Amino acid sequence: MTDLAIPSVANGKSGHWGLESIVQALRLSREESHKVRHLGRIRDLPSRTALVKILDGLSAALFPTHYGQPSLSDESIDYYVGNTLNTTLVGLAEQVRRGLLFAASPEELEGQDIPARAQQITRDFAHQLPHIRGLLFSDLQAAYQGDPSATSLSEILVCYPGMTAIIYYRFAHALYVLGVPFLARLIAEIGHSKTGIDIHPGAEIGGSFFIDHGTGVVIGQTAVIGSNVRLYQAVTLGAKRFPADESGALVKGEPRHPIIEDDVVIYAGATVLGRITIGKGSSIGGNVWLTHSVPPGSNVLQANNRQNGLQND
Amino acid sequence: MTDLAIPSVANGKSGHWGLESIVQALRLSREESHKVRHLGRIRDLPSRTALVKILDGLSAALFPTHYGQPSLSDESIDYYVGNTLNTTLVGLAEQVRRGLLFAASPEELEGQDIPARAQQITRDFAHQLPHIRGLLFSDLQAAYQGDPSATSLSEILVCYPGMTAIIYYRFAHALYVLGVPFLARLIAEIGHSKTGIDIHPGAEIGGSFFIDHGTGVVIGQTAVIGSNVRLYQAVTLGAKRFPADESGALVKGEPRHPIIEDDVVIYAGATVLGRITIGKGSSIGGNVWLTHSVPPGSNVLQANNRQNGLQND
Amino acid sequence: MTDLAIPSVANGKSGHWGLESIVQALRLSREESHKVRHLGRIRDLPSRTALVKILDGLSAALFPTHYGQPSLSDESIDYYVGNTLNTTLVGLAEQVRRGLLFAASPEELEGQDIPARAQQITRDFAHQLPHIRGLLFSDLQAAYQGDPSATSLSEILVCYPGMTAIIYYRFAHALYVLGVPFLARLIAEIGHSKTGIDIHPGAEIGGSFFIDHGTGVVIGQTAVIGSNVRLYQAVTLGAKRFPADESGALVKGEPRHPIIEDDVVIYAGATVLGRITIGKGSSIGGNVWLTHSVPPGSNVLQANNRQNGLQND
Amino acid sequence: MTDLAIPSVANGKSGHWGLESIVQALRLSREESHKVRHLGRIRDLPSRTALVKILDGLSAALFPTHYGQPSLSDESIDYYVGNTLNTTLVGLAEQVRRGLLFAASPEELEGQDIPARAQQITRDFAHQLPHIRGLLFSDLQAAYQGDPSATSLSEILVCYPGMTAIIYYRFAHALYVLGVPFLARLIAEIGHSKTGIDIHPGAEIGGSFFIDHGTGVVIGQTAVIGSNVRLYQAVTLGAKRFPADESGALVKGEPRHPIIEDDVVIYAGATVLGRITIGKGSSIGGNVWLTHSVPPGSNVLQANNRQNGLQND
Amino acid sequence: MTDLAIPSVANGKSGHWGLESIVQALRLSREESHKVRHLGRIRDLPSRTALVKILDGLSAALFPTHYGQPSLSDESIDYYVGNTLNTTLVGLAEQVRRGLLFAASPEELEGQDIPARAQQITRDFAHQLPHIRGLLFSDLQAAYQGDPSATSLSEILVCYPGMTAIIYYRFAHALYVLGVPFLARLIAEIGHSKTGIDIHPGAEIGGSFFIDHGTGVVIGQTAVIGSNVRLYQAVTLGAKRFPADESGALVKGEPRHPIIEDDVVIYAGATVLGRITIGKGSSIGGNVWLTHSVPPGSNVLQANNRQNGLQND
Amino acid sequence: MTDLAIPSVANGKSGHWGLESIVQALRLSREESHKVRHLGRIRDLPSRTALVKILDGLSAALFPTHYGQPSLSDESIDYYVGNTLNTTLVGLAEQVRRGLLFAASPEELEGQDIPARAQQITRDFAHQLPHIRGLLFSDLQAAYQGDPSATSLSEILVCYPGMTAIIYYRFAHALYVLGVPFLARLIAEIGHSKTGIDIHPGAEIGGSFFIDHGTGVVIGQTAVIGSNVRLYQAVTLGAKRFPADESGALVKGEPRHPIIEDDVVIYAGATVLGRITIGKGSSIGGNVWLTHSVPPGSNVLQANNRQNGLQND
Repeated sequence: MTDLAIPSVANGKSGHWGLESIVQALRLSREESHKVRHLGRIRDLPSRTALVKILDGLSAALFPTHYGQPSLSDESIDYYVGNTLNTTLVGLAEQVRRGLLFAASPEELEGQDIPARAQQITRDFAHQLPHIRGLLFSDLQAAYQGDPSATSLSEILVCYPGMTAIIYYRFAHALYVLGVPFLARLIAEIGHSKTGIDIHPGAEIGGSFFIDHGTGVVIGQTAVIGSNVRLYQAVTLGAKRFPADESGALVKGEPRHPIIEDDVVIYAGATVLGRITIGKGSSIGGNVWLTHSVPPGSNVLQANNRQNGLQND
Repeated sequence: MTDLAIPSVANGKSGHWGLESIVQALRLSREESHKVRHLGRIRDLPSRTALVKILDGLSAALFPTHYGQPSLSDESIDYYVGNTLNTTLVGLAEQVRRGLLFAASPEELEGQDIPARAQQITRDFAHQLPHIRGLLFSDLQAAYQGDPSATSLSEILVCYPGMTAIIYYRFAHALYVLGVPFLARLIAEIGHSKTGIDIHPGAEIGGSFFIDHGTGVVIGQTAVIGSNVRLYQAVTLGAKRFPADESGALVKGEPRHPIIEDDVVIYAGATVLGRITIGKGSSIGGNVWLTHSVPPGSNVLQANNRQNGLQND
Repeated sequence: MTDLAIPSVANGKSGHWGLESIVQALRLSREESHKVRHLGRIRDLPSRTALVKILDGLSAALFPTHYGQPSLSDESIDYYVGNTLNTTLVGLAEQVRRGLLFAASPEELEGQDIPARAQQITRDFAHQLPHIRGLLFSDLQAAYQGDPSATSLSEILVCYPGMTAIIYYRFAHALYVLGVPFLARLIAEIGHSKTGIDIHPGAEIGGSFFIDHGTGVVIGQTAVIGSNVRLYQAVTLGAKRFPADESGALVKGEPRHPIIEDDVVIYAGATVLGRITIGKGSSIGGNVWLTHSVPPGSNVLQANNRQNGLQND
Repeated sequence: MTDLAIPSVANGKSGHWGLESIVQALRLSREESHKVRHLGRIRDLPSRTALVKILDGLSAALFPTHYGQPSLSDESIDYYVGNTLNTTLVGLAEQVRRGLLFAASPEELEGQDIPARAQQITRDFAHQLPHIRGLLFSDLQAAYQGDPSATSLSEILVCYPGMTAIIYYRFAHALYVLGVPFLARLIAEIGHSKTGIDIHPGAEIGGSFFIDHGTGVVIGQTAVIGSNVRLYQAVTLGAKRFPADESGALVKGEPRHPIIEDDVVIYAGATVLGRITIGKGSSIGGNVWLTHSVPPGSNVLQANNRQNGLQND
Repeated sequence: MTDLAIPSVANGKSGHWGLESIVQALRLSREESHKVRHLGRIRDLPSRTALVKILDGLSAALFPTHYGQPSLSDESIDYYVGNTLNTTLVGLAEQVRRGLLFAASPEELEGQDIPARAQQITRDFAHQLPHIRGLLFSDLQAAYQGDPSATSLSEILVCYPGMTAIIYYRFAHALYVLGVPFLARLIAEIGHSKTGIDIHPGAEIGGSFFIDHGTGVVIGQTAVIGSNVRLYQAVTLGAKRFPADESGALVKGEPRHPIIEDDVVIYAGATVLGRITIGKGSSIGGNVWLTHSVPPGSNVLQANNRQNGLQND
Repeated sequence: MTDLAIPSVANGKSGHWGLESIVQALRLSREESHKVRHLGRIRDLPSRTALVKILDGLSAALFPTHYGQPSLSDESIDYYVGNTLNTTLVGLAEQVRRGLLFAASPEELEGQDIPARAQQITRDFAHQLPHIRGLLFSDLQAAYQGDPSATSLSEILVCYPGMTAIIYYRFAHALYVLGVPFLARLIAEIGHSKTGIDIHPGAEIGGSFFIDHGTGVVIGQTAVIGSNVRLYQAVTLGAKRFPADESGALVKGEPRHPIIEDDVVIYAGATVLGRITIGKGSSIGGNVWLTHSVPPGSNVLQANNRQNGLQND
């Protein structure tokens, strides 16, 4: 009858971590770094897991035969799209709400109807989806035309990390513009983690955009990219380098990333830095390091590439 | 008794997305881009989720003590291998079938017994597995010999992304040769996403191949790599650059990636482009940009590396 | 009553893979490569899946409001931290035990109480967690100060792959020092796979460390990094290149990666190789290839960057 | 390099089950009982797991606000219903196909297009769903009127096992009539397992049917039940008892369960056996044992109930 | 480039269900039965899945070593209990909120702060948990004393359906009294489905209560049961039978189930009906049908049991 | 920089449960009831979840085409059986170990090699599986012969709860005899919960046993059942009723349930109590209450059944 007093194993010490002191030390560490103890319920952050599901839902709504469920037919596809949209938008509205709450200080939230604003942003986003699909279809065609290995549009949708990165970027950018930058950043990072391609949601990118291979591509927050631009792996469109000041901080603000005009191709490993302009129709060679503007139609190669500046021991 | 008429919340507007107009606009967008409405059931694409499971199964069948389930013993290991193979091959045959259906046009499918062909391809693939295991074991030994940090073969199997990339490549290549390139591409991309290493399944790669670190490596479709070759991170074996034509498309077809002969080492960040040949036993330095063939035994360094062409402000 | 004798479909051949011969060939392949048949139960390897869960648990215990469950409140947070720690440490102790068993030869294990040693290592690790949190908080502040795009500490914790990589590195390094290098390597590789950032757990890295973008960063086993260092994507802190010997193996042992002193910034794509020292406060430019030490306060740029050594066709 | 030859633990005997002899003995046992070895691929049985999901889908399509997903709105509900129906019917068609294959002998299958027949049966079933919903709504109202504890229709849909049992019965019966009795039996048994109510899908049951509490109710294969009938727990509508013949088998075939006319109530524990008729409007008391027909309007009580045939020690 | 226009399979008819007409007919069926179309978002019902998890959480919080996670130790158990309680109560509060919304009409909800009321009810419930645990421990001891087969308290907690049923009843009853009867009913039904024991949450049951075997037990809404009562399988404590009126409905309201005083035993299959009182210390025999009160100390047997009223053919 | 100090929502009170006092009260309640505080790690109980998986595995190993995975073929079935057995037996050995630890007092465990004993018991159990399969096949044939509704052996295996109950009983009984009664009880209860059939694992039951419908059947610990016995729903083979003593406890020990000889049929609702013997070939009628032995060939009916002792109002 007293068998609930379960005897301990062995010497009574195994599994003893000294939890109490660790928990207390971690609490101290939290309080020190935050300067203040939490009061009441903590605000929930946007959830990465929820966003992954939302991104799957949005992709499926736009390209149901490629990212949706199997067994779709002509009579069922609109039911699928409509239902997927509803589920996904309800989920997105909750994440937008969290993103709004999170970005703002308690004072800013005063008197605002945050859930209503989250609903409105989500609704506005939803109505942009057909337009976004149009852009993505132009990207898809650009990939098909730009890669001699591509055998079909389906292969690009299903197998190309560049396509995934662009899809996520276009969702993230729309949300960024609608006023939920935190959420946009998180979506971009989900894309970065899956593809190795890092596009800041603040960047502006025109239609028919294609990134081949893609690992290591970085596109900065204030970059502006025209139509029909093609990038290869490890291209950086970054901010120019600043001399290190004493605190090690970079100056914040202002446009600091390149403007890439229409019809430009930038080959693998090229680094383009600062608020410079790459003129329409230019071609930037692999591994080129470029920090000044070039006029339309330029064909820039790294000096030692052309000279084959290599030596053989 | 009428309580099933569940009253709406609040103002009857929350959660209203205007689904009908969005669904209709998306349908229009699909129809425009596809030029044609779907009729009847849509063909199922190969499933990425299914392939991930299949790749796990194949890896487990080849290296059961490292990628298989725990609790294997000498008396149970063959039961495990046999059962895993059966489950995995049944799954693979279905994906091969989808891949075949997908790659072909309706006319080509006319009169073909696609399921039977999928079975035969899968069976042929299955019988290559012991040979593939042999190649992979040579890769494993090459990694052990090529990396001073490696402490055991097990560490390489469990911790090295290069090993994962090669395993997936060898599966993908076998399927590519057997006539299911779409599936092969998808497998390669799964490997790319996990490791940052992008090997086209069309490439031909000999035994004892090792990629260290690996992020950013790109190996093109028509590359040919001999035995005992070692690559480091961010190495590109790519197609040479073509001047941009008016449509922005690259010319398709023909061998356009390098041939790397036996016993070559290519260091991090090197870019090797075009149908050139790197002679047996050569060593290509880090960051080198190489667009011409080099004879056996070459030791190529970037010019300014040797001159330490750096300046101090 | 004999309906259990389920009739075969069709021609009795579909689904026949010839399993027996494949299973036998794979067994032969295993035995050849291992030179010896397994006897009895096979030792379980550390489990990647289990470690992923453990890393989530440790991250949640250190930053419960960012990586923990939702619905935490001031009264519940310590219960959550304590419970998460207990579950996670029990899981970690099992993986440490496997790691110890795995690393050692049967002779070395003779007479040792491996489970007790695993408990002790886990307990020691647990008591370092508050210290590790302190370091990570300094890293977090460094990221905020070092990136003009960062809008809050929360954004960095949730969205920055560099932060994830550093968190995993700090866990891995502590375990490396405590004597479970296999486990440490596996944790590092999980981080590499998620972020594209490859930090060997043997490296020593001071506080206030920040990696921006990060894809392609490689930090070698014997690298030593001071306080307040900032790296950008594709930076390599590697071993110097050795001439290929006949077996293709590199010489093992000895410190062979750079020492980076405090307050250094290294820009994207720079390659720093060998046991050289980058003096305090130095700045290394993008794409620089550096194989010799530089004194404190150096500002190193690649020659042709400064000269804008580019040509226009 | 030989570390893949993982040493065994301890004495090389732990975990040794003697699998080979057990596997062989089980194979012998299978072959003996089946009289014949399997040839080729074995036909797949209908899957209980798949059917559970299908039942959830059908229930959700009929009562989306009670059994469907949350977050439905007036604009999204038809998308949800349509999409759920499509997914569910595709799944059902596959199970119907299996059921057809399973029920028939190989000879019967000769020359039949089983998949097409499965599609047709599923389509016919689908078009009966609105009618079935109408019946179920009458059952729901009967429950509300028949149970003084019921507070709303929603409570009955969500909390009453009798309702679940009737929903499953009505689906099963429709499939039984359409010619897939095996599937119908399996659905009925899923309902039995959830509710303790065992209704054979062959039984015919009119509208406005209600079972309260329900555990232990058994309704036989050839029972016929009119409209507006109410049963309580542990009521049996069974076949009459047959004297045991030498083989212990009961005679198969012919109607052998009761006919219950409209407006009958049968109280808990009553047993009604054989092809008898309970006349319209009758009431059968608790624990009554009844093996002969009774005219309309009968009120049957067990003798000793009325006499309070109880003794007090 | 037009490969997104995926060709249909075969004859373009397979998989065609005629969804549109079914969806429309189901909508009509819903509108007819509900008399009204939904407007806006539909209120979410309490979720059975969520409640199952909540019941697991509550059980684990009360008996952590039997229903909680493994690997608890003396230093970790309170962290586990605290964290489990927090998670569970947050989940319960949401279900209580839904239950409150659901039970009330829109008019009743006007101006109420339902979330705050849900919080308060949940908090009140939480503070009753230690008291509930005390009652359950008395039930546990009663089971141990009342069943000669029971070998330990742990066996009863882990293996006895009667114990599960009582635990769920005690949770449900507390919520019933606190004003969320819908939730209470749903919890009771979850218990019923798992155990075959059907206890209405409105019933009042004293301590040291034990149900052996239990399948088929029914305890009605207004039953009152004293301390130290023991029931066996298939016992009914029901409402008395009413003659069928023309609508078939039973009269609602008023106490209509038995009062069972302390120390009563009721054997398998006994049926006790109506607002009668079974006096303290009485024993009711198996299969007895009892519709009148009996004084304390009664020992009631069915007449023909005592007389062995059986015949042999 | 201080944004980690996440502001509280609203009034700082929501979500506050007063956890500390509840956790403390629950700890007190545990300590009071157990009389002793836990020391060190608590012993793990056998896991219901693990056992459910083990039962699935054992069922699949015995009837792979009915309970195993799909896609089995003649060449793969033994791999499947062998692998399933290995996985399942490893899992079972762990549960047996827990069961042994749990049943024994710390003193009894002193100096025992419990893991080795658990291995041995599991091995012995494994070698009984072919014999158990033989018994189950006889049960299957008995069901087919005993139920006029049964159309195939497969239908019985897949749809009959009686079959499930017997399979679980035969596993449980073997473990009971091998000395792990706690585990056996838990398995029996899993079967009870799924089927409503409650068979104590201590009962002894011969071959060709069949239970039809089954809900409410109870078979006690010391019951002995011969070959070729058939039971219907709600049959009780129980212990005789004892007058209530002052503590309410029943006398423990000694055989107290019936002996049922070969070829007996017992119809629905019959109650057979005490250590009596039902002679070979007897038939016991529905609802009969029997507390004395009957000779072979008896045909027992309830008195008022034969007399149709019913009255019509």
